[in-house]
Amino acid sequence: MSLQSNQSLKCKISVKSPATLITVVLLVMIASLVKAQQVDYSIQAVPFTQVKFNDKFWLPRIRTNHTVTIPASFERCEATGRVKNFEMAAAHSGAFCTVYPFDDTDIYKTIEGASFSLSLYPDKALELYIDTLIQKVAAAQEPDGYLYTARTIDPLKTHKWAGKERWEKERELSHELYNSGHLYEAAVAHYMATGKRNLLNVAIKNADLVCSVFGPGRRHVAPGHEVVEMGLVKMYRLTGNKKYLETAKDFLEERGRFAGYDSASKDPWKNGAYWQDHIPVTKQREAVGHAVRAGYLYSAMADVAALTNDAQMVQAVDSIWQNVVQKKIYVQGGIGAVGDGERFGQNYELPNRTAYNETCAAIANIYWNQRMFLLHGDAKYIDVLEKTLYNGMISGVGMDGNSFFYTNAMEITSAFRHSDMEGGRSGWFTCSCCPTNVTRLIPSIPGYVYATSKSDIFINLFVSGTSNIKIDNRSVEIVQQNDYPWSGALKFTINPSRPEKFALKLRIPGWARGEAIPSDLYSFTTSSTQKVTILVNGNVIPFEMSNGYAVLNRSWRKGDRIEVVLPMDIQRVVANNKLIDDRQKVALQRGPIIYCAEWKDNDAKVSDMIVPQDVVFSTEFVPGLLNGVQVIRGQVPAIEVKTPTQVTTISKSFTAIPYYAWAHRGTGEMMVWFPVGIKDLTIIPAE
Amino acid sequence: MSLQSNQSLKCKISVKSPATLITVVLLVMIASLVKAQQVDYSIQAVPFTQVKFNDKFWLPRIRTNHTVTIPASFERCEATGRVKNFEMAAAHSGAFCTVYPFDDTDIYKTIEGASFSLSLYPDKALELYIDTLIQKVAAAQEPDGYLYTARTIDPLKTHKWAGKERWEKERELSHELYNSGHLYEAAVAHYMATGKRNLLNVAIKNADLVCSVFGPGRRHVAPGHEVVEMGLVKMYRLTGNKKYLETAKDFLEERGRFAGYDSASKDPWKNGAYWQDHIPVTKQREAVGHAVRAGYLYSAMADVAALTNDAQMVQAVDSIWQNVVQKKIYVQGGIGAVGDGERFGQNYELPNRTAYNETCAAIANIYWNQRMFLLHGDAKYIDVLEKTLYNGMISGVGMDGNSFFYTNAMEITSAFRHSDMEGGRSGWFTCSCCPTNVTRLIPSIPGYVYATSKSDIFINLFVSGTSNIKIDNRSVEIVQQNDYPWSGALKFTINPSRPEKFALKLRIPGWARGEAIPSDLYSFTTSSTQKVTILVNGNVIPFEMSNGYAVLNRSWRKGDRIEVVLPMDIQRVVANNKLIDDRQKVALQRGPIIYCAEWKDNDAKVSDMIVPQDVVFSTEFVPGLLNGVQVIRGQVPAIEVKTPTQVTTISKSFTAIPYYAWAHRGTGEMMVWFPVGIKDLTIIPAE
Repeated sequence: MSLQSNQSLKCKISVKSPATLITVVLLVMIASLVKAQQVDYSIQAVPFTQVKFNDKFWLPRIRTNHTVTIPASFERCEATGRVKNFEMAAAHSGAFCTVYPFDDTDIYKTIEGASFSLSLYPDKALELYIDTLIQKVAAAQEPDGYLYTARTIDPLKTHKWAGKERWEKERELSHELYNSGHLYEAAVAHYMATGKRNLLNVAIKNADLVCSVFGPGRRHVAPGHEVVEMGLVKMYRLTGNKKYLETAKDFLEERGRFAGYDSASKDPWKNGAYWQDHIPVTKQREAVGHAVRAGYLYSAMADVAALTNDAQMVQAVDSIWQNVVQKKIYVQGGIGAVGDGERFGQNYELPNRTAYNETCAAIANIYWNQRMFLLHGDAKYIDVLEKTLYNGMISGVGMDGNSFFYTNAMEITSAFRHSDMEGGRSGWFTCSCCPTNVTRLIPSIPGYVYATSKSDIFINLFVSGTSNIKIDNRSVEIVQQNDYPWSGALKFTINPSRPEKFALKLRIPGWARGEAIPSDLYSFTTSSTQKVTILVNGNVIPFEMSNGYAVLNRSWRKGDRIEVVLPMDIQRVVANNKLIDDRQKVALQRGPIIYCAEWKDNDAKVSDMIVPQDVVFSTEFVPGLLNGVQVIRGQVPAIEVKTPTQVTTISKSFTAIPYYAWAHRGTGEMMVWFPVGIKDLTIIPAE
Repeated sequence: MSLQSNQSLKCKISVKSPATLITVVLLVMIASLVKAQQVDYSIQAVPFTQVKFNDKFWLPRIRTNHTVTIPASFERCEATGRVKNFEMAAAHSGAFCTVYPFDDTDIYKTIEGASFSLSLYPDKALELYIDTLIQKVAAAQEPDGYLYTARTIDPLKTHKWAGKERWEKERELSHELYNSGHLYEAAVAHYMATGKRNLLNVAIKNADLVCSVFGPGRRHVAPGHEVVEMGLVKMYRLTGNKKYLETAKDFLEERGRFAGYDSASKDPWKNGAYWQDHIPVTKQREAVGHAVRAGYLYSAMADVAALTNDAQMVQAVDSIWQNVVQKKIYVQGGIGAVGDGERFGQNYELPNRTAYNETCAAIANIYWNQRMFLLHGDAKYIDVLEKTLYNGMISGVGMDGNSFFYTNAMEITSAFRHSDMEGGRSGWFTCSCCPTNVTRLIPSIPGYVYATSKSDIFINLFVSGTSNIKIDNRSVEIVQQNDYPWSGALKFTINPSRPEKFALKLRIPGWARGEAIPSDLYSFTTSSTQKVTILVNGNVIPFEMSNGYAVLNRSWRKGDRIEVVLPMDIQRVVANNKLIDDRQKVALQRGPIIYCAEWKDNDAKVSDMIVPQDVVFSTEFVPGLLNGVQVIRGQVPAIEVKTPTQVTTISKSFTAIPYYAWAHRGTGEMMVWFPVGIKDLTIIPAE
């Protein structure tokens, strides 16, 4: 989920459940008392509740998420004992029956995903089931608001990662505040989607406890796994209760204060960098440590920077973002290169064979970039968000909605199999953070398409559908019709409730302007045959670019049509020479889609192929393949082992598919980066 | 050094310095009082002082060690501040001026090496210089015997690895007892070689302090880096003072008792396995953790097992030895496969590209196998010792005596360079354990050639020279004449002082009987054209084999000649299929020598060659090459990159040199294991 809860007070008007109207009105009244002081992002995302998709790319995935992933996820929460943990906590009897103390969050995250999903697929049975779960969650909450089944079940036998006392090991591995953070995120989404307060009440009670224990003038801790900071900001934006924001900020500012680390050590566990706890956040300039923790931290830094006007915090999070896009992100948008510690590597450490790329880290990266956009209003953040969304994030979930990658490989060859890297998807993991994170991210995508700022409307993503956008208390309907990401021909119909002058800021992706994303690390060696063209009501118009947006500032009338042509040539991508593993190699991109070659389409092998400069590629949409994908084809030289002592070179047909679509047809070789020529060969031996 | 000090009391008769004779006689008298109770190995090595080499393989190395390595090592101890540390400690003023608290030991180890060396190369100037060093060492010793410059210089500013109090961090990294252990080893060698007590007195004073602090009924610790145990056993065997043996045993038995480790962790630093401190030694069955620490521990276990008749300890050390030879030793005798922690890997984890193989670990393995032989009298231990000595150990020192490997690579290719692996030798290292360990090992080799047991004489190594061996208080001179390791034709002349019946146990190496060493991990696919033949006084004799020895039991007269022919065919070695990295590969061996192919002899490249089953090899001794080596030649298929998109197979001349001799002619590719055929190829890309 991202900032779909921005328009906290406005969105309450649109809740569907009339029964909760009185509550909502009361909330509005209470909140308006503090509203005067409430600082928020100057740019606000249009909430997911206002955006309906009817496209062929995302809607089927959201539908599969609704019909397959969410039920399967709840079923697994039941079958593995995650639900039972709450029941036992309510009864104060039994023994914690799953593995990790953060297993509670899989329930919260699935409720969050289901809440987003209900906005597109109203589903009474699902809503009722969620209510029964919320009852169990509420029953497991201790009278003062504490909620952490791993302790409440039997306080004398807490989880080994938790201390004897509450919060005692929060800086390390107890995850007590991590659980709280996910509770808040779920509660806000659930309230926004349903208007029901049942989970929100639990969250408020817990947040009030957390803020009575921690925060300015009270106890301090740098939470061992960040997310409570993001959650508290959401709670603040929904309720206007300022102590939530203050405590979030306090959690951030406590980082880098612990004296027990060995700052001279290079071991990220010993020097605190694993937890981003090595130096104060405002002094941090580099993305380090566990990538999911980092992504959630940087998201919260953007939140707090914006909401408290903290210039130092802005400077820090801007620098860290620069560090990631200049030195630490894969071409498919994945982050967290190193398996040992699931963490960021050194600058330019982006190996292909061992690329870890946790799915959760891609999701965290989406959260973070959305917030960076809201903070600065620049399309470059959405460029990174789009890259991650269409490539390194959705690769993490199979098209059946029931199979997942925890890691997202960049290269699988028969010659080299690293034990960390998954060659095929799994149904579930003991540590199931990734599947439930996917469950909540996929249906939240409608919340990323539009944003508003005063009387401007930002169009960030291109997805067919209808949206209802409020600016200056008036409503504008925008209808998108396109075949994105396969076609760059985009149509928008603008239907203001009455003629109105406002600026439409239409994102022109970096890749459509000849820049690979991010351009510090990657570039195109090819140039487009077309230029970006914009027509309004059939006439080509000149347009001004500002921060990556084509600014269409005019008086709009109902039925106004915008047509945009984004060039979708096949691009050869090369990497910065500092990326050792990509040297003298090429990747392929078309539109926002990064390609890979998989064994299935290439005579069972892809590591034998060379892609020299002169290969001529063609492209074609294949409806029956992998739910419909645009493939790229060419003829390339390849190596053939004729006998155990004889090798030769042949011409071979090359077929590339979108990276996100790999690993749906059995396991075998896959590569993203192809050698442009042979300098040398390593022999894999055989009798 | 190994057990050259075995015959503690006997060897004193042969000391060369008449001035110390009175002292020696006194020592003999004192020691004889305790001698009645003193248990020792039933097999005793013939001390280095009794064996003189005149061969072309080892003597030049010992000479170079004497003329180049030892002076250079002392010079570096002076230049780096290691000597100055002792001077400052004596003055209780200044600041420790080197890096590691164990830097003291480089001086001890060089004195030890110089002492061995003086036995072959008497050198008054060197002896006097050592005396001045010993004066400085003695002056740095505190009144109660404590000797550790990193604390004595300024007890208020000890090294960060040392505690505020003495011994406080001995279980971790202080190395206080490690320094003591090397002091004892040096003192015993120095006393044996020179008859002087100056260093021995320092050692006794320190050992008495150590034994007054630690041992049965006193404090206990599992020393963080073993070696004090070996050193104390040597002190016991020299002086007969039983508390030294008891304290050594106590140090061993303290291992595995520390409650502060996390036994559930797989991290060897957290579970204690790095220090072999994870379980009690008598329960240990697998070689784990830092390989040098381990080798010193297992050496001491063999010592204590033998000297205290401890059957449980015998069982443990036997099992660990089995584990190493069945699962954890490289084909060139190296141990400690993993760079991270310089430690043993998992069973069968013997990767080539990242093989760590610390030179010190090879040396520790030699110490250990010598003791295993003394304990059990089986030639299989000398087979492993010989393999390590002629291959993975001497590879660690360049023929100039002034360049060293800390790690000993198994494979260097242009396609894969691991940062841990050295492609060329260095003059010295900040952590200079390996150079000074080599300095003391090389001149100690005369002490490994012979051993005695009652009236039996063991001939373990084949080195031209003359020895003077005592059995039953009579003396037997044995003269060896051979061109080992290049020729398997061995000649021995047996000169007893008068005709005498005794058993000569002549080691017949496993490799000469068709077994690769160790046979659990490696085997020959070829068989020898000859059989082992033994002639006595010109007549072929039948002989009985016992524990790897040909037993020649007869009445020997002065001038009796033994001739032995060991077949020296070129053997194709294959590895156990569980060694993943060696699958479908072959290594080459001739006699005890393991071969490698180096870029210099193979058209600048070796990773392009295939060595199929049908290659016909020839061999030739090349006097001008690398101080004279036997090379192996053949014609093999190889891969050639003709253009960046075209590959073909050619026929190429293949030349292999002894592994130990690589890296003397610049840096480039080197391989030990060659593919027998091509199954697949990995492309190294180029424009």
